[in-house]
Amino acid sequence: MDKRRARGERTRSRVLRRAAELASVDGLDQLSLGRLASDLDLSKSGVAVAFGSKQELQLATVAAAQDVFLEQVVAPALRAAPGIERLRALVSAWLAYVRDRVFPGGCFLVAVLPEFDTRPGPVRDALRESRRAWLDLLTGEAARAQADRDLGGDLAAEDVAFEIAAVLAAANLARNIDDDETALDRADAIIRARLDR
Amino acid sequence: MDKRRARGERTRSRVLRRAAELASVDGLDQLSLGRLASDLDLSKSGVAVAFGSKQELQLATVAAAQDVFLEQVVAPALRAAPGIERLRALVSAWLAYVRDRVFPGGCFLVAVLPEFDTRPGPVRDALRESRRAWLDLLTGEAARAQADRDLGGDLAAEDVAFEIAAVLAAANLARNIDDDETALDRADAIIRARLDR
Repeated sequence: MDKRRARGERTRSRVLRRAAELASVDGLDQLSLGRLASDLDLSKSGVAVAFGSKQELQLATVAAAQDVFLEQVVAPALRAAPGIERLRALVSAWLAYVRDRVFPGGCFLVAVLPEFDTRPGPVRDALRESRRAWLDLLTGEAARAQADRDLGGDLAAEDVAFEIAAVLAAANLARNIDDDETALDRADAIIRARLDR
Repeated sequence: MDKRRARGERTRSRVLRRAAELASVDGLDQLSLGRLASDLDLSKSGVAVAFGSKQELQLATVAAAQDVFLEQVVAPALRAAPGIERLRALVSAWLAYVRDRVFPGGCFLVAVLPEFDTRPGPVRDALRESRRAWLDLLTGEAARAQADRDLGGDLAAEDVAFEIAAVLAAANLARNIDDDETALDRADAIIRARLDR
């Protein structure tokens, strides 16, 4: 890759990281190329050339946020053994990702899903895929934990996954709206009680 | 009340009902007096006089949506006996309210809370109060159910309430994003299993 292209890639990734941070607070609709350019001290035309339409920018932002999620939440948890240990590790890593404000609004996906959940189109499709991947990951580990008899079988694995993801999402919202970090501890306690049963 | 004032009240309540419907899909930020006036075949100036600022309109919309929630979810459930029966009735009434699309985006509060959760101000305060009232209602019935020994005590009543509200909110989102009504049945099954334990 020549220098100019490498610089273009770096700029693009800075823009997308900032876009994901802003969207986690204000939503994907509020993203503007002008705001991003001025925040990052770039020319608006340069940013516009890199992304084209607002929808392209939104889609690239969703993809960039997903990369951060994979790096911050999924990758560390994959070091734990499959099954109940990995399920617990995913919950811990998710809570750390929100507690540490990797994105200022907390979980990117939790922040932007409700904005697009009733608006058909490519952005909603991308968010649906992202949510599905997270639920599938939790479901797989819950199923393994049940097969290992480390987790009770009163609910299907996908219901356990649904419940865990629901409590985490609610904790993100509770932390934000009440300005209360203990909401994350509460979610941890609720999920721990769920997994210990 | 004279006729003119009565007509003003009717217009105001039509506007707010429509505003709550629109906000449940597009969010409170997208509300516009012009759009509401044209949707309802009213003059824009008449609507503007009734509400003044956009924030006043947003606050009045939150209050109107809360009245609908009280009427559709809380009032029917209050007919059930306090404790476990009323807790089940609240869950059933909530699921019916979302299933019947009283608001096209499902639960109004679930739809708009994430939009304002990181934006301090009167709208966020109103939404926080609304959410708090819902959690307090569930917590009170869960505590009564525990005192009656109709519900296990492995979690504090407020944690049970948090968990139930979380699963319901997640079901609303899942129904919308996957266009799949069975998400509501899944939430029902998860909560039923929770309450039967």
